[in-house]
Amino acid sequence: MTSDKGFVDAGLRSWRSNMDRAGKLFGSLTSSELEIEVAPDRNRLIYIWGHLMAINDGILPLFAFGPRHYPDLEDMFVAKPDRAVEALPGPAALLNMWTELDTALWQEFQKLSPSDWLDRHQGISPEDFIREPHRNKYSSLLGRTAHLGYHLGQANLAVRK
Amino acid sequence: MTSDKGFVDAGLRSWRSNMDRAGKLFGSLTSSELEIEVAPDRNRLIYIWGHLMAINDGILPLFAFGPRHYPDLEDMFVAKPDRAVEALPGPAALLNMWTELDTALWQEFQKLSPSDWLDRHQGISPEDFIREPHRNKYSSLLGRTAHLGYHLGQANLAVRK
Repeated sequence: MTSDKGFVDAGLRSWRSNMDRAGKLFGSLTSSELEIEVAPDRNRLIYIWGHLMAINDGILPLFAFGPRHYPDLEDMFVAKPDRAVEALPGPAALLNMWTELDTALWQEFQKLSPSDWLDRHQGISPEDFIREPHRNKYSSLLGRTAHLGYHLGQANLAVRK
Repeated sequence: MTSDKGFVDAGLRSWRSNMDRAGKLFGSLTSSELEIEVAPDRNRLIYIWGHLMAINDGILPLFAFGPRHYPDLEDMFVAKPDRAVEALPGPAALLNMWTELDTALWQEFQKLSPSDWLDRHQGISPEDFIREPHRNKYSSLLGRTAHLGYHLGQANLAVRK
């Protein structure tokens, strides 16, 4: 393994680890458990799960993998706060979306070379990227991984009692 | 910047970003605010802050930077659960330790070359590292960064109301 690949491997392992923890935690919850708030008057577990899915869905266009698979998630779980949307998908539908997105992203991630990872994402123009080369796909992967961990910490407050 | 350095830069930026958020959040809390629990019957903010410090202190020997600076933190904030130790350091002492450790680690991190980052840490023997080369310093950095994010998510439940 070249050293470049060692770094890519580390980033992907960190993503995988956090995705697995999130999938295991949220995927096992019932409808009523998904209604639990992580702290008094804070987001419900269903909202956090959907939020993570919406962010994952956004990686598809951000990394030029193609359009979002579930564009409705953005409005339900990012643009609007928890409880603003009455009819949210149920646990089975959420788990299907979660799994499908996880698989799709993981497959696309494997196709990227080390230099692809250090190339820009679609959130920055080629001109700006010359001045800000740290705004690459790899940095976004690390940022998204930290975001998963951030909400996992919250979700675990509600489920690990 | 060579591609190796691009990956190191991304990992260090992610660490820096989470450390800065944590430092800003915890460093501004009063004694009484540090007593707030992140959720009912869960850890107090003071315990989470001390816990993050204890883990940071542990990076010093793990990365062969030298011995821990504050070995007592491990017992207070890792080995024992919250409320098991009566006399914890106050906000000013905690902030001093936090800042000193942050500076020390950051300086040491700058000295590591890309190949140093992909070399083993002290938690794995040279023999085992041959079979498990992913157990390197860089992976640990990403793991520690996700751990910061995990507890930041919890702490923000208590302070952002």
